[in-house]
Amino acid sequence: MARPLRIAVAGLGTVGGGVAKALRSRESELFARAGRPLEIAMIAARDRRKDRGFDHTDLPWADDLAALATGDADVVVELIGGESGPALRLVETALSNRKHVVTANKAMLAHHGARLATLAEKNGVALKFEAAAAGGIPIVKALRESLLAYGINAVRGILNGTCNYILTRMEATGAAFSDVLAEAQKLGYAEADPALDIGGGDTAHKLALLSALAFGVQPDFGSITVEGIDTITPEDIGFAKEFGYRIKLLGIARATAQGLDRRVQPTMVKLGTPLADVEGPFNAVVVHAGEAGPFVFEGRGAGEAPTTSAVIADIVDIARGSNGAVFGRAASALSRPVPAPVDARVSPYYLRFHALDQPGVLSEISGHLANAGISIGSMIQRGRAPGGTVVIVMITHECPEPAVRRALKVIEASDKVRGASRMIPMEAV
Amino acid sequence: MARPLRIAVAGLGTVGGGVAKALRSRESELFARAGRPLEIAMIAARDRRKDRGFDHTDLPWADDLAALATGDADVVVELIGGESGPALRLVETALSNRKHVVTANKAMLAHHGARLATLAEKNGVALKFEAAAAGGIPIVKALRESLLAYGINAVRGILNGTCNYILTRMEATGAAFSDVLAEAQKLGYAEADPALDIGGGDTAHKLALLSALAFGVQPDFGSITVEGIDTITPEDIGFAKEFGYRIKLLGIARATAQGLDRRVQPTMVKLGTPLADVEGPFNAVVVHAGEAGPFVFEGRGAGEAPTTSAVIADIVDIARGSNGAVFGRAASALSRPVPAPVDARVSPYYLRFHALDQPGVLSEISGHLANAGISIGSMIQRGRAPGGTVVIVMITHECPEPAVRRALKVIEASDKVRGASRMIPMEAV
Repeated sequence: MARPLRIAVAGLGTVGGGVAKALRSRESELFARAGRPLEIAMIAARDRRKDRGFDHTDLPWADDLAALATGDADVVVELIGGESGPALRLVETALSNRKHVVTANKAMLAHHGARLATLAEKNGVALKFEAAAAGGIPIVKALRESLLAYGINAVRGILNGTCNYILTRMEATGAAFSDVLAEAQKLGYAEADPALDIGGGDTAHKLALLSALAFGVQPDFGSITVEGIDTITPEDIGFAKEFGYRIKLLGIARATAQGLDRRVQPTMVKLGTPLADVEGPFNAVVVHAGEAGPFVFEGRGAGEAPTTSAVIADIVDIARGSNGAVFGRAASALSRPVPAPVDARVSPYYLRFHALDQPGVLSEISGHLANAGISIGSMIQRGRAPGGTVVIVMITHECPEPAVRRALKVIEASDKVRGASRMIPMEAV
Repeated sequence: MARPLRIAVAGLGTVGGGVAKALRSRESELFARAGRPLEIAMIAARDRRKDRGFDHTDLPWADDLAALATGDADVVVELIGGESGPALRLVETALSNRKHVVTANKAMLAHHGARLATLAEKNGVALKFEAAAAGGIPIVKALRESLLAYGINAVRGILNGTCNYILTRMEATGAAFSDVLAEAQKLGYAEADPALDIGGGDTAHKLALLSALAFGVQPDFGSITVEGIDTITPEDIGFAKEFGYRIKLLGIARATAQGLDRRVQPTMVKLGTPLADVEGPFNAVVVHAGEAGPFVFEGRGAGEAPTTSAVIADIVDIARGSNGAVFGRAASALSRPVPAPVDARVSPYYLRFHALDQPGVLSEISGHLANAGISIGSMIQRGRAPGGTVVIVMITHECPEPAVRRALKVIEASDKVRGASRMIPMEAV
């Protein structure tokens, strides 16, 4: 019989617990799949006595993380989380000690991925991270191993289930962002500190990993423009619907002639296209790969079972001896991403203003847009409020983002316009 | 530098040409991905002088297939097609000569897969077939390597682009099956002899492969119930729409307590669910994997680029040394599929009759259904034709398929009913 693969698990939260349970309850099936037994060699978690909803008394506990990284395990599964600190130290030590690493830690890889890939390579071990992007969807493997024959033009994804849940609920209930966020927190769909999710940072971490795989760039995410969903209003969601769109937080990485256009931003997605129909806690990724694409991948974005599924897949890969390059090519072959200039971002835009209900307002706003070279495809002015403010919504024809931003600055300075305006790009693919 | 992987390509049709072109035009990118050069060692095709739309004069031609299987190539890529004959002989000889094999040949694998897997295993080489199911969608890899941590409950797919194109066009134009088929043949979306596609056989071949991967059974497709789309009428498509459904040819493999329920049949799929929105030549697969699922995969089902993408992925896998079990576990561990009894097929059914427009007809039909224990959820009688026939459509509540078939037999024997009736299962997932 082939030698068992000895697995050390760091962290016994939702995912760590799921992995431990799956390794035991699916023991013989996973043996058949891996061609050798998968064996939990060591577990380390903060509190051994904590009730974790399953019996873990017979698991081989280690005293500390260092024991995992230096012991006799073949693989260290890092499920502690956190951009640096103990997780990073554990992974560095494990790789240096020639242990394969499986991690779900997108923040760590988005910040230190290139360096860790080099370290893994130098030590001849694998560093796998299927669970770090899009939950259970095997998109990391697909980009690393499957979609290779044609160059990738673009990767677009709904990569954060919390944001997607909130936007879906806002549409369904008409409730404000803050109310829906509070509800999501109560239901466990949002963290107590939701900033990383709703601010778009988590999506940017994942986009950094996917674009490394798709475009051969270092998983550095400094050049990703990030905008969250906290300023989306029920009003915007309602107008989107009127125009046949739905607002989604997308991560977009797109090859242009001038460089890589990468951004995380609320986007109006045309109803009937694959990303528009992705609801609640689901994630989805659309990959355009020349004439071979588009490819659509959809599944649960987080939670015990989907994430466990991704971690187990990586472990089985390692058990079978799969030890390809971390980001699909040698770490030394990853290039620094060259960011495309913002005027490579050309699309129709949704613009929304609150303005005084008086003659001349529309002509002033549209005049400023015309000055910036922006033409209007359609317009809605809603309600009448003589002396008060009304809502004006415009859909532009295709135009570059900087022109829109310039025009908005001028428009917001007008004494006829109240408060901040809103611009949201529209995608029809 | 690592030794080049030497590739022999058999067949230079659409896909063979695509593979040859991709290996040359993406040479350096594929080198980076594979970690070693990919080199075309030999090509064999029927006619060297044939114009194939690209320059192939510099390709190293072999005199016959035997040369590929016995020469010094590392991998033989079989793109000849056909259930047995030259393709099967080539693959057998290649595997016996310890050459890895990549194939797009679903018919061959559905018939001889278990035996070929054993042969590959015995010789310590890979037999890979990503291109044999669902075109460019990396579903073979996903089922073989990714969705392992939870048992798979069901795989449902639109696996034949020709059928899906025909059904999509029938809905869009209202035209009859035969007219749309003729159009599809003219456009190259259907073969001159379309029997394997429209009869459901091709879908069954692919379903046999996917269920081998998902359920660990031999890829024998004898126990798959197969029904094609040639009897679908514009009338049925119209009624489906009225009820909020769309007719798709699905391949379904579902684990039940009594065995594996596998069938290829026209199915009414609820609008808004992932398979309903798959249009034209696209394929899609939905995998239910316990709490981790559902997973949805969508992409182009056939054609040069999608199929080439799948073949190249297999080649790169082999170049990197990935040599896992052909169907995800040792060939000897694949079990014979135990077919579920047909009464495990429980769903609502769409029933359509042509009957005389006279009093008592409805009560007779519904009486026969009631006798079989089938209750009716809704009913439409369309048009009035005193002395002639009218269309009667009924949607049943959930009931087992054999009960429906029994009732239809009795109903069709009535002198008030004209011609064959129609039953189509309805799926809401």
